[in-house]
Amino acid sequence: MNLILLAPVGAVTALVFAAYLAYSVLKQSEGTEQMKKIAAAVRKGANAYLKRQYAGVSIFFIVMVVILSVLAALGYLNPFVPIAFLTGGFFSGLAGYFGMKIATSANARTANAAMKSLNSGLRVAFKSGAVMGFVVVGLGLLHLSVWFYFLKWYFRYLPEAQQIQEITSAMLTFGMGASSMALFARVGGGIFTKAADVGADLVGKVEAGIPEDDPRNPAVIADNVGDNVGDVAGMGADLFESYVGSIVSTCTLAVAAGLGFNGVTIPLVMAAVGILASIFGTFFVRSGEQAEQKILLGSLRRGTYISGILTAVIAFFLVRSVLGMEHIGVYYAILSGLLAGVLIGFLTEYYTSDTYKPTKELASTSTTGPATVIIGGISLGMISTAIPVVVVGISVLASYYLAGGAQNFSMGLYGVGISAVGMLSTLGITLATDAYGPVADNAGGIAEMCHLGPEVRRRTDALDALGNTTAATGKGFAIGSAALTALALIAAYKEEVVLIAQRQGLNFQFDLSIINPTVLIGLFVGGMLPFVFASMTMDAVGRAAQKIVVEVRRQFKEIKGLMEGKAEADYARCVDICTRGAQKEMIAPALLAVVAPIVVGLILGVNGVAGMLTGATVSGFVLAIMMANSGGAWDNAKKYIEAGNYGGKGSDNHKAAVVGDTVGDPFKDTSGPSINILIKLLSMVSIVFAAFILQNSLL
Amino acid sequence: MNLILLAPVGAVTALVFAAYLAYSVLKQSEGTEQMKKIAAAVRKGANAYLKRQYAGVSIFFIVMVVILSVLAALGYLNPFVPIAFLTGGFFSGLAGYFGMKIATSANARTANAAMKSLNSGLRVAFKSGAVMGFVVVGLGLLHLSVWFYFLKWYFRYLPEAQQIQEITSAMLTFGMGASSMALFARVGGGIFTKAADVGADLVGKVEAGIPEDDPRNPAVIADNVGDNVGDVAGMGADLFESYVGSIVSTCTLAVAAGLGFNGVTIPLVMAAVGILASIFGTFFVRSGEQAEQKILLGSLRRGTYISGILTAVIAFFLVRSVLGMEHIGVYYAILSGLLAGVLIGFLTEYYTSDTYKPTKELASTSTTGPATVIIGGISLGMISTAIPVVVVGISVLASYYLAGGAQNFSMGLYGVGISAVGMLSTLGITLATDAYGPVADNAGGIAEMCHLGPEVRRRTDALDALGNTTAATGKGFAIGSAALTALALIAAYKEEVVLIAQRQGLNFQFDLSIINPTVLIGLFVGGMLPFVFASMTMDAVGRAAQKIVVEVRRQFKEIKGLMEGKAEADYARCVDICTRGAQKEMIAPALLAVVAPIVVGLILGVNGVAGMLTGATVSGFVLAIMMANSGGAWDNAKKYIEAGNYGGKGSDNHKAAVVGDTVGDPFKDTSGPSINILIKLLSMVSIVFAAFILQNSLL
Repeated sequence: MNLILLAPVGAVTALVFAAYLAYSVLKQSEGTEQMKKIAAAVRKGANAYLKRQYAGVSIFFIVMVVILSVLAALGYLNPFVPIAFLTGGFFSGLAGYFGMKIATSANARTANAAMKSLNSGLRVAFKSGAVMGFVVVGLGLLHLSVWFYFLKWYFRYLPEAQQIQEITSAMLTFGMGASSMALFARVGGGIFTKAADVGADLVGKVEAGIPEDDPRNPAVIADNVGDNVGDVAGMGADLFESYVGSIVSTCTLAVAAGLGFNGVTIPLVMAAVGILASIFGTFFVRSGEQAEQKILLGSLRRGTYISGILTAVIAFFLVRSVLGMEHIGVYYAILSGLLAGVLIGFLTEYYTSDTYKPTKELASTSTTGPATVIIGGISLGMISTAIPVVVVGISVLASYYLAGGAQNFSMGLYGVGISAVGMLSTLGITLATDAYGPVADNAGGIAEMCHLGPEVRRRTDALDALGNTTAATGKGFAIGSAALTALALIAAYKEEVVLIAQRQGLNFQFDLSIINPTVLIGLFVGGMLPFVFASMTMDAVGRAAQKIVVEVRRQFKEIKGLMEGKAEADYARCVDICTRGAQKEMIAPALLAVVAPIVVGLILGVNGVAGMLTGATVSGFVLAIMMANSGGAWDNAKKYIEAGNYGGKGSDNHKAAVVGDTVGDPFKDTSGPSINILIKLLSMVSIVFAAFILQNSLL
Repeated sequence: MNLILLAPVGAVTALVFAAYLAYSVLKQSEGTEQMKKIAAAVRKGANAYLKRQYAGVSIFFIVMVVILSVLAALGYLNPFVPIAFLTGGFFSGLAGYFGMKIATSANARTANAAMKSLNSGLRVAFKSGAVMGFVVVGLGLLHLSVWFYFLKWYFRYLPEAQQIQEITSAMLTFGMGASSMALFARVGGGIFTKAADVGADLVGKVEAGIPEDDPRNPAVIADNVGDNVGDVAGMGADLFESYVGSIVSTCTLAVAAGLGFNGVTIPLVMAAVGILASIFGTFFVRSGEQAEQKILLGSLRRGTYISGILTAVIAFFLVRSVLGMEHIGVYYAILSGLLAGVLIGFLTEYYTSDTYKPTKELASTSTTGPATVIIGGISLGMISTAIPVVVVGISVLASYYLAGGAQNFSMGLYGVGISAVGMLSTLGITLATDAYGPVADNAGGIAEMCHLGPEVRRRTDALDALGNTTAATGKGFAIGSAALTALALIAAYKEEVVLIAQRQGLNFQFDLSIINPTVLIGLFVGGMLPFVFASMTMDAVGRAAQKIVVEVRRQFKEIKGLMEGKAEADYARCVDICTRGAQKEMIAPALLAVVAPIVVGLILGVNGVAGMLTGATVSGFVLAIMMANSGGAWDNAKKYIEAGNYGGKGSDNHKAAVVGDTVGDPFKDTSGPSINILIKLLSMVSIVFAAFILQNSLL
């Protein structure tokens, strides 16, 4: 029991470490005046975006708090949910805020450090990524710890078994705030970044024929801002939610499995152990002067693997001391989660990196034009779903049986939950290697815009290329962990409904059989939702990008001397258009995610909702991998051609590959990753509205 | 009981009617010598393809019969399965053979009749489509009837309840032969047709700049052959399988619902009623001389609607007299199926016809290049899945509850099965309007190649345009009926397993709950299969098309005088390449469909198999609709531009739209429709191997 104290201790340690890293990044110089100026413009744009986003989100949060308060007043929810909804959203937003603050402060500093040496550049970029990583896990775990201790105090007069049940049942409903914030961050950020990117490319590169990151392009700052709001803040919020969701659902499943406080101790302390191991791991990320991607990647991997191994070792003693050798299978479930995370990350890399066969073959399809590039990329994405599904399948099965599911069904489900926690335990460092990417990307842009010389540009290019690989791995990891978390949430949903029915004295029987027609239709509706959601987000990018195209064309035409480099573009206007576009366009997908479980629930009841959640997780997982990998492979096939293969830059083959890359942009950076949020938010909304649905559904 | 005699009577009537139609088509003139020559070349190519396909398929059938015989000898299967596997495959193949024979004999005759009047052309093309339609339903129902009466005689000494159980249980396993044949027809035909089409276009239209259907293009005959083997034989085999599958699964569910022979009478007699109503409907398909698509479409619709209404009226009296007013809900289940079929067909048309907003908007995306065309088309396909899923959902729910599922679960499932039968009852005429398309398409090609003059070409163009619409509706119908049939098969699978376990005295308990990990993983694996299958078939088209590209380029280069029209192209070689390519490339997808249920079953057991079937049906249904509609919309967006919008033929916008159309080709004609077969074949294989899996699975 006292071990749980490690959770707040770990959380605070993570935050202190993040503060230390932030300090050590900020004390670096931002370089020349011009570098400072560009960095300031990016920072200003990112701040403006965040400010507008938080303002928009506030309206949503106010409406939701009113609805939740009414439900709580009617007895459908425990009274803490509206407050926890706010605190969850606030902490998630805060993590995004800090992460972006540091990322937009580190870009020029990375470029400047790269003037000294490659290792210096790597260190600055990685440290700023690590700030994001540790802020996410620190704030996530802190939020959970505070509520845990508060609820423990609040329910102090209850007998222990009932106390833990009330605590976990309440905490399970708390994830919706973080989920909602994640949706806006991922979807809004995804729309912003790709609208800016596509818009900048279509007019700048294709029509005007100026290079990427050229300061004459009015959308260039928006493009750089986009890297930060999409890949930093969006990714952080996504994983914040998975992190919190996996822990609370496992706690709920612990109670169902009859493990009581001991079962709750494991996930909370595992999170703390993962934080400490991640901190340890960060000290191993450094490199020499060889800018070979393999070596750079190796240095990032070293940190991650050391953290993982350390976590795995400590977890053994943790499980043994808390649950005893009798439940040592729980430890193997943790291991299976850790391993699955690594494997899925590697598989993503295999399918999207141009060092492997699939992307090389995709590049060769460019010789027969854009249509074959598209067919090849979609086909690649589709076939790339096979092994990740098998890996997740084996991981679920292994963790279920290893934790003792054959004897005790609930123990098996607890095993599935804890494997998700295991996968996410070293999130601190995993996210660091991921959030590092956009910083390096921005640094490259600044090096280009400020003409820092070929040697610096070579170093930032090496860092950037590495960032593309880690971004791909990060996306695979985000999808894998989202799927496992969603499964744990579905299992927890069932427990929560059973508990509510008991409390309210309802004569309720679950029938989750797949041939129960309500479940079956739920599966169908759920299976369709990710497709509709992806369609909505892709269209949103298209509409927002269209506005940028019009604006950039206008500036090229109306601002005299812009193309000659004598006048300055109106960068702020493009940022503003992207911001407005993202704000407006994210409303409809958000509504879909919130409304679907309620409508399905009101018609089909809780069985139908469980079917819908499962259907959405299954098809969402597959579709998200497909879209992410198709997009990643198109991007790298294009880069492979640009590196001089199949005719190189400017050839017809290159033009064909650019079509693939442009299609891939919303695939991999907007729709694909947003599906992660969709499947988790659906679960969260279902959990929060469970009591309401249970009493008011048609069937 | 005696009513069941209507089934063989209906079957024979259908076959006699088909023979009459075939006679009245064949007595028409094939026109000029040149028309005869081209028609003969197409016919020869199609025959060569069929011959090779049947030879290849024979090997598969021999292997399977050996495996099934071993299983039967070991007691895992009833002894009739190996024979029924052969007869099912044979009848399905026979239907394809007759359908293609008449289609390849009607193309020149349609062109020739179109010289007289539009109505004459429509009549010839439609009659030849109707031959396919009535051969499919006639042979399908004949096959079932013969086996039914044989088994009834064989089990004559059993008490009635047990007799009907043995009959339906045996017949359920008989669908695998038809399924296997359908796979080869759909996948092989789909690969052939698109390899020829894409290959012909890439070199002929794009590189050499000669028009479509130009006799100088060496792949032009292969392209015409492809229309027949893909859209006629493939579609026919697909629906043959749905037709047979929906009937046998409903018979099995009738026994589980305790309806006995009466419950079996309904689906069998419904099929016969549908045949008679369809024959009646065909007489209403005629038109005047106005070549407006609306009017032509109206004349085809009239026939379909009249058949549907007639069937609906007779079905009421059938249900009332066989099951009594107590079970009149079964009648409403039939109605819901009929209605859902019409609705899904209409929705497909809405999303893919250029008379509606979605495709018009897609055409407008061509102004910003091929990338936005692709994004727009994929997005359109994705969002177009929403309403069909809801329609199927409502149909399933309605038929379940209307048939009395609230009181009796098995009655509800019987309702779902009978709704699929209802949807497919008028298949005779539905398939006629669908198989008509390729004939009209071929007729247009012949008119072009033989320079029959603008008036004739205008008429065949009108017929062809109509064919595109009916093809789209047909695809929607094929997917919708495949999904409903698959659901009925899954429910029947469960009954079959329960029965096997009883017979073998196994202490077996189903746990089909979605949170049972074996079911869950089954769902994941099943959800992934259609994606992998689609990827394999798309790649297959790419590889086969590549070979055609090389060959056409070679002929252009090596055959002197070809481009000047002085020498003749070597058409047969292109047909041969497509044939070989299709044969070779269909092996891997076929193996996936056969092996997946066995592997999943051996590891996860029958619960996992049920999960896999459901997952595949859910994600397959959504993916198939998406691919079919994206492809259809791209095709028509291109045609919309060719009609003079957004710059018309030859403009940059047109080029962008052509990219979409080329991507759409394997989407809508290979991968999308093949998914229908995948989900049904998975069910069939699972059913046949159920006893084996039940005793030999790991979990």
